[in-house]
Amino acid sequence: MHFMRDLQTAWQARESLLCVGLDPDPTRFPDHLHGRSDAIFTFCRAIVDATADLVCCFKPQIAYFAAHRAEDQLEALIEHIHAAHPGTPVILDAKRGDIGSTAEQYAVEAFERFKADAITVNPYMGRDSIEPYLSRPDKGVILLCRTSNPGGSDLQFLDVGDGERLFERVARMVADEWNVSANCALVVGATFPDEIGRVRELVGDMPLLVPGIGAQGGDVEATVTAGRTPDGTGLMINSSRAILYAGHGEDFADKARAVALSTRDEINRYR
Amino acid sequence: MHFMRDLQTAWQARESLLCVGLDPDPTRFPDHLHGRSDAIFTFCRAIVDATADLVCCFKPQIAYFAAHRAEDQLEALIEHIHAAHPGTPVILDAKRGDIGSTAEQYAVEAFERFKADAITVNPYMGRDSIEPYLSRPDKGVILLCRTSNPGGSDLQFLDVGDGERLFERVARMVADEWNVSANCALVVGATFPDEIGRVRELVGDMPLLVPGIGAQGGDVEATVTAGRTPDGTGLMINSSRAILYAGHGEDFADKARAVALSTRDEINRYR
Repeated sequence: MHFMRDLQTAWQARESLLCVGLDPDPTRFPDHLHGRSDAIFTFCRAIVDATADLVCCFKPQIAYFAAHRAEDQLEALIEHIHAAHPGTPVILDAKRGDIGSTAEQYAVEAFERFKADAITVNPYMGRDSIEPYLSRPDKGVILLCRTSNPGGSDLQFLDVGDGERLFERVARMVADEWNVSANCALVVGATFPDEIGRVRELVGDMPLLVPGIGAQGGDVEATVTAGRTPDGTGLMINSSRAILYAGHGEDFADKARAVALSTRDEINRYR
Repeated sequence: MHFMRDLQTAWQARESLLCVGLDPDPTRFPDHLHGRSDAIFTFCRAIVDATADLVCCFKPQIAYFAAHRAEDQLEALIEHIHAAHPGTPVILDAKRGDIGSTAEQYAVEAFERFKADAITVNPYMGRDSIEPYLSRPDKGVILLCRTSNPGGSDLQFLDVGDGERLFERVARMVADEWNVSANCALVVGATFPDEIGRVRELVGDMPLLVPGIGAQGGDVEATVTAGRTPDGTGLMINSSRAILYAGHGEDFADKARAVALSTRDEINRYR
């Protein structure tokens, strides 16, 4: 696997910019899965198998596994994705960030243990905190830039000089200085289409991971128009809850597929 | 347990501002532990039992456990600290940071699963990303402010207006706005004593977790002088590698104790 190459291939071959986020919340699972010790794996595998041909990547969120002592099910899930759906990149959404020696351990966790193809990382601790990820050009490093949550502006919107906001500085730093292995991408929330456009101006063709459509209310047309690259790709538009919990019965995976399909198609209308 | 109260008690009763960081690296363990499936737990337990009366808290770094698929050993270790050394707060060094719904999962991981008394958190995503921790006044929330690594200045030193640097704004925001449950603390690296002093001016008596002495080279006298509160407490001064790997043989825990003792005493000389 080579994250950046596989992502490009998936964008083209599957004609999809959709990323399905895997945030398994057992309290929202269909009844027939309740009480099963492998419920998290079983639920996610069904979602994956029902949507893999519609996505450019999957993004499991590690907190949802860790809270349930289900790291083994996350390992099994990523192994399943690679085996059953080769060429589909897996982003481990972990938002790690620590000093170099600790970041090396996190890189081992993400890439050796979980065998993810990319990881999300927090830039607050600066360049050396992402060095262990940069040294793996086959893996993707996706840095938080402009996040989709209400508090995202608290720091990211601060003016760091001459009207430049912190998230713009992060975008510029990553594009101009940190992306030495051509394996960086950025997280930019769909709740702020103007800022997606601004980041796109700053980073050229760098891929953007865009959470915030679906449950968080981001606008698909505005997101795609602002963020696409000239060839109509460049975006991994994430939807998690709106797809995962579209259904509540034994046909939950079919319901998830239907929402994934309409979301992919809606995205494609504006490419 | 109540993190802030227990920390105050530990500072006074043990006359110590020392925090021992538990960053277990099996490649540096003494030979007799090699190949044991519980080597990480056994190593850390020996360090804990040899130093508990000399510390105000322990700080396991989760990456070192996760990289080795050793979450169960981390659970067992924290359970051991609570059982064998009651009143000794445990900080889970995880530097988590995510949107509210995901942060709730991380809070479950830290407080329900691992039973930590406090967690380190990254402020980049803003107020709502730490809300799930603020709603637990018995638990500590220790936010990154000024980190001890070389890249720490990349973002944290940016001027966010009127000469105020980003880490100062974070300190002020946490002290003035976010600390509604009186359970916040800040991470400020020992490699920058002037900045410890600056943060101390901004946050009153708020506890500071100070990594960077020992292997990272921070100056103990300058750190204590700059960071102590008027009653000679207010600091959790962390040392990890210099203590953990002081010895290389079967007496490694005795060697660790000797270094912990001299570090505690050196700190106390300047209180």
